[in-house]
Order: sequence, then structure tokens, then C-alpha cells
Amino acid sequence: MNQTQFYAPTRVIFGADTEKQIGDIIANYGYKKVLIHYGGQSALRSGLIDHVKQSLISKKIDFVELGGVVPNPVLSLVYQGITLAKTEKVDFILAIGGGSVIDSAKAIGYGAANEQDVWDYYSTSALPQACLPIGTILTIAAAGSEMSNSSVITNEAGNLKRGCGSDLSRPLFSIMDPVLTLTLPDYQTAAGCVDIMMHTMERYFNHGDNLELTDAISESLLRVVKKNALLLAKEPQNLAARGEVMWASSLSHNGLTGFGTDGGDFATHKIEHELSGMFDVTHGAGLAVVWPNWARYVFKERLERFVQFAVNVMDVEPCADAEETALKGIHAMENFYHALKMPTNLKELGLNPTEAELQEMAEKCDYRPDGTIGIVKKLAVSDVYAILKCSR
Amino acid sequence: MNQTQFYAPTRVIFGADTEKQIGDIIANYGYKKVLIHYGGQSALRSGLIDHVKQSLISKKIDFVELGGVVPNPVLSLVYQGITLAKTEKVDFILAIGGGSVIDSAKAIGYGAANEQDVWDYYSTSALPQACLPIGTILTIAAAGSEMSNSSVITNEAGNLKRGCGSDLSRPLFSIMDPVLTLTLPDYQTAAGCVDIMMHTMERYFNHGDNLELTDAISESLLRVVKKNALLLAKEPQNLAARGEVMWASSLSHNGLTGFGTDGGDFATHKIEHELSGMFDVTHGAGLAVVWPNWARYVFKERLERFVQFAVNVMDVEPCADAEETALKGIHAMENFYHALKMPTNLKELGLNPTEAELQEMAEKCDYRPDGTIGIVKKLAVSDVYAILKCSR
Repeated sequence: MNQTQFYAPTRVIFGADTEKQIGDIIANYGYKKVLIHYGGQSALRSGLIDHVKQSLISKKIDFVELGGVVPNPVLSLVYQGITLAKTEKVDFILAIGGGSVIDSAKAIGYGAANEQDVWDYYSTSALPQACLPIGTILTIAAAGSEMSNSSVITNEAGNLKRGCGSDLSRPLFSIMDPVLTLTLPDYQTAAGCVDIMMHTMERYFNHGDNLELTDAISESLLRVVKKNALLLAKEPQNLAARGEVMWASSLSHNGLTGFGTDGGDFATHKIEHELSGMFDVTHGAGLAVVWPNWARYVFKERLERFVQFAVNVMDVEPCADAEETALKGIHAMENFYHALKMPTNLKELGLNPTEAELQEMAEKCDYRPDGTIGIVKKLAVSDVYAILKCSR
Repeated sequence: MNQTQFYAPTRVIFGADTEKQIGDIIANYGYKKVLIHYGGQSALRSGLIDHVKQSLISKKIDFVELGGVVPNPVLSLVYQGITLAKTEKVDFILAIGGGSVIDSAKAIGYGAANEQDVWDYYSTSALPQACLPIGTILTIAAAGSEMSNSSVITNEAGNLKRGCGSDLSRPLFSIMDPVLTLTLPDYQTAAGCVDIMMHTMERYFNHGDNLELTDAISESLLRVVKKNALLLAKEPQNLAARGEVMWASSLSHNGLTGFGTDGGDFATHKIEHELSGMFDVTHGAGLAVVWPNWARYVFKERLERFVQFAVNVMDVEPCADAEETALKGIHAMENFYHALKMPTNLKELGLNPTEAELQEMAEKCDYRPDGTIGIVKKLAVSDVYAILKCSR
């Protein structure tokens, strides 16, 4: 039995029109000066940013704003946000968007509340000692950052994409109105569903004795997301399906599906970070490319687990040969990705990296001090290179 | 789509020997004077209380203690605890035990942090404005109070058992070491499993459009607890099964299995509170008596839900006739209770209440202002009386 913790203090406020409460919510916490942080034009065009401002004004809450967060959010904007937050004496950050915006807000929160260079927390083992409080209005169901302790930032100098995990950055509250996701492009919706499932799959594929309860919850979540992702591919306006996927995004990355495990594998995420660090691809699409190739490379190391996944999640009829069952499960996942119009190799992702680029990605990966990533099979540089090569 | 919230800020520290960290944990929070609150002799005899004291002493944390909490914890001891906490300037309450001890600690926390008579928060609509911070070391998996916002206290004057719900009382942390539950009498283990399942069943049987994800998680949890309860009836020393049941106790009452519902029914709990308020029976055993009788009384009001429960949780083969399927599900639950040596009627519970006593319980029940309890079917006094009468 692993010693394990669960800590998910974020207050989730879920349902249609919940974002209209934003002024009241922040006023109840007593914050006075908010940094409104968001991405591109869609939040502006939809009127969401204006509604939020009106709600804050009606409660006499002051604010400044910083838009322009891009997918795979960059360090340079984080530094801008830190300067703005310090200059304007901001006491609260409101992230309006998806994982990129929330991750950027977390990094600004660290930078504004500590003296140390914020990049240290992402690139070294330095730990932040404080973080400005953060709230979110979620507009993309994918990253799970709205309840998680993690954030990922890309340093443009060297295209380094690195993560930082600290409970200090878990949002105080997250407002989740599935209506806000109705306008997402289909590709983003699908990539989001891949990412949501991957957060649970990273924890599901591990090397420990899992709790039955954690497994049962994880398999339930994966089946529900799979079903609703397929539904949304046909009916993007299905609000109930949007709601299922949105709540799953949070549960999949708040620690619930990792409870009692040895921490999960996360090699797929780390390899994908190199892909999207170098080529700026959509994270979920990158995951769909890496996972099947990772899975075929490692599945014999924990065969019974891949069989369980094939049968309980992917509805594979078990064969006499366990390896065949496991491989059918991986293939079924590829079929699912294709049904969502997601790629399963680098070519489908629009990439044709050179040998040198493959090697560079493999070398830059965020290895542990022992020079490996992953748990199901500990992968060294040569393994990561091999997986990337299979992914072409 | 219901507007809904999820808020479960308690840090769960789970696994063998986790209670040995207690001194460090409280020192990290910075508390100086702890009220150690516990029940009867078992926590003393096992050496747990002594170990906790040694751990606090080693961190130079001062403490006072108050034992003697009984099942269905009483108001008089709560008042004692409030006086002690105020006199000794306690800044933290550590509850060591199960639901009764934790509920008693919550009531002391309210009483010590507010000027108002604590019983007001249980007997009227008055809301506590503060609560002393609480931590728990869980020794009985059942009530779910270790993560919940609720507590139930019995006022000996009039045998009134009443609940109070406030997020202020959600424990700061809960230490869950399944090893500590190995010495529980089989009857308590079984009654605990009934209570755990009932917290999810109360939320599962409702009148709203549930999230598929919530249903899937609920059904998973119920199946896992059912399986492990039967295992523990045969192998009380099965530590893995103890772990499954312990984590389920928390998830079943922290709001997860009610997410997106209209709040759940809870009539079975309210009727049982009258039973254990008047006759001091074990809560879980009382629930096993009330639920099947409640279910047969109301199932036609939400037939499709009872069919889903029969098939997905109780493994009933669906019949052509939906009512027959639903009834088979209720009957399967009675068989399960009997397999755990739990009663399913008042006689098996060792009670033979008079007509007047049945009437008194029905009348004393904690009705809403409209004079009803429950959601699947709104039950008035005459309905509650009828259910109690069927339970004989």
C-alpha cells in the first residue's frame, strides 16, 4: 500500500451562467485589485471579458488586464504579467481561458509573490514559497489546470517547455460554464478530449498496486469522455456532452485518478512537450501521436495492465493471447483518435522532422537525475529517440 | 443542467503509519494548543492516543484531552468540550475516531468560535460564522465526516438528533491509516459499509438530470464497496479491502457523488436519525432497516432510476417488466445486508416499537418548512409513519 495524498481545495462552481457571479465571488473573498489574464480575440469577441469587467465594476473591484496568451504559453508574457502585477499592486489573478491562460497565470502568481526569477521554478528544483491567489473562468475543457497544482511554460530562448508543480498555485475557485465551450473549433474540442483522457491514462499506467476504487473511477471517467468526445464530433452543440467533458477535465488532473498509485508514468506528456516546444503543435494532438507509439514500445513491461485497459476501457473482446489483447486496445485507441480527426503519427500532424531534430528532442527531454523518464518502463535518451522515430 | 458546486479542501494523508506524522503536520500548520478528542477505551488501549501525545510533545505542541464520545454523540459532552476549549485557549481540535468523534469535534469547533448557543446551529436555521480548525485521525470508515461539511448531534433532552452543514467545519486534514481499522468488531465494519454506500445512494436517488460521469463514479464506488464489504465479512484482516472501504467513505460524502444532482433524497438518513435518536441503535444498521422499506414505498416515482441501480450496481438481469427489475434490485440489497449480518427490519434490529413510538418518530422527523422530507417522493408524516410500520 502506497502512502498517498489527495488535496484539491479549489471551489468548483459549475453550470450555465455561473460566470455571471464573478463580481460577487471575488468581493466575498475580499480582493481589491484583479489582474484579468486571457488569450486571444475569442474571449473579447464573445463579450465575456466585458461582462467580467462590468461585474467587477459593479462590486467596486479595481482591475488591470493582460491578454495575448498563446497556446504553449511563453515566458516573455509571464515576465510582463509579473511586472504589471507588482507595479499595479494586484492582489488576485483571474485567468479567463483554458490551460495555457491558467498556466500563464500560475507562473505570474509565482513571479509576483517571490523575489527569485520565476524560470528557476520551471527549470531547476527551486520551489516557490508563495503564489498570488488565482481564480479561473474556464473556456476550454482540456488541461485540468483549473484544479491542478501544475503549470507548463515555454521559454522561447531554446524552445524549452518545462513544468512546475506546487499546491500553492491550485486555484481558489474555478467557474465552469459548459456554454462557454460551445464556440470552440472542433479540432480544439477533440484535442482537449485527448488531453483529458491522457491525464488519467498517465496515472493508470504505472508500476504499483493500485486501489480498485481508483481504477474503477479512472475507467469510468475514460469511458464517459470517450463516449462524449465521439458525440461532440457529431454534435458540437450538445451542451450535456460539453458538461461531461468539462467536469472530467478537472477530475482527471486534480489527483483523484492518481490516488494510491505510485505517481503515474507521464513519459507521453514529457515527450509531447518536446514536440510542442519545438514545433508549436496543439498539445492534445501531439499526445495522440506519442501515446500509441509509447504504448507499443512499453506494453510488455506491464502487460496485465494494458489488457485491463483494452477490455475495461476500449471494449476489446479478450483473446487467448494477452499480448494480442493489449495490442488491440492500443489499436482501438488509434481508431478512436482517428474518429476524432486526431493524428496518430507525425506525418498526420503535418511534421516531417529530420533525424537531427528527433535526436535534439530526445536529448532535451526533462529527464530525472538518473537520466530517465517514465515508470512503466524507464526510458533513456535512446528509448525516447526510438519512440519518436516510430511516430513518423 | 443544475448549477452545482464541489468543495473538498481537506488534505487527505492516506496509508500505513501516516498517523506517525501527526506532530510534524500540526507543527507545519503552526498550531500551539490542541484539544485531543476521542471516544472510548479502544483508542487508549491500542496506544494510539499515547503515540499522538508523544508526537505532539516532541514538537513542543501543548494539548488537553477530552474522551468519552459515544456513538450518536451527545450535546452535553459538546458543551464540556466548548468550555474546555475556551478555558484552555485551544487553537486546534484533533478528532481521533470515527464519525461520532469528528461530529462532536465539529460541534465543539462551532461552539468555541461563536458566542451563540451551539444547539441553535443544529435545531434552527442559524448559521455558524466560524469554526476552530479541525484535523482527524480516522479509526472507523463509515460516516465520511472526515471530508464532509456535516455533523449530527443528539440532544439528550428530547432525544433529538439533528444535523448542521457548513463548509467552515470541513477538516483541514484527515489522516487515514487502514491499519487502524483492523481491530474493529465485524458488526461495526459491516454497519460502516452500509453507511458509506448510503451516502452515495442518497445522492444517486434524486429527481434531476444527473451527469453521466457522476453516475458512473457512483456506481463504481458502490460496486467496489459492496465487493470489499463481503470480502471483509470473511476476511476482517484484509488490509487492502480496509483501504478500499476507507477511501470510499470519504469520497461518498465529500460531494463528489452528488456533483450535478439536485442534492439527493436523504429521507432514509432522516428517518434513521429518529430511530437512533430514540433507541440508540448503530446508524448503519438502522439505515439497512429503513432503506429497503423506503425504496419499496417510493420506487415507482423514479422507476428508471431504480432499474439502473438494480442492473448497474446489484447485477440484476433486466426483466421485461421494469417494476420487477427494480424490486429485484431492492431485494438484492436486502440479501447483501443479510450477508453482512445486518438487519433489514426493526425486529432483526432488536426493536419492537409501539404504535405510539412509531407515530412519535414520524412526527419528530426533521421536515422542511413544507412539512416533507425526501426528493424522489416528498414524504409527509403519514408517509414516514407508513415506512416505519412496514419496517417492523
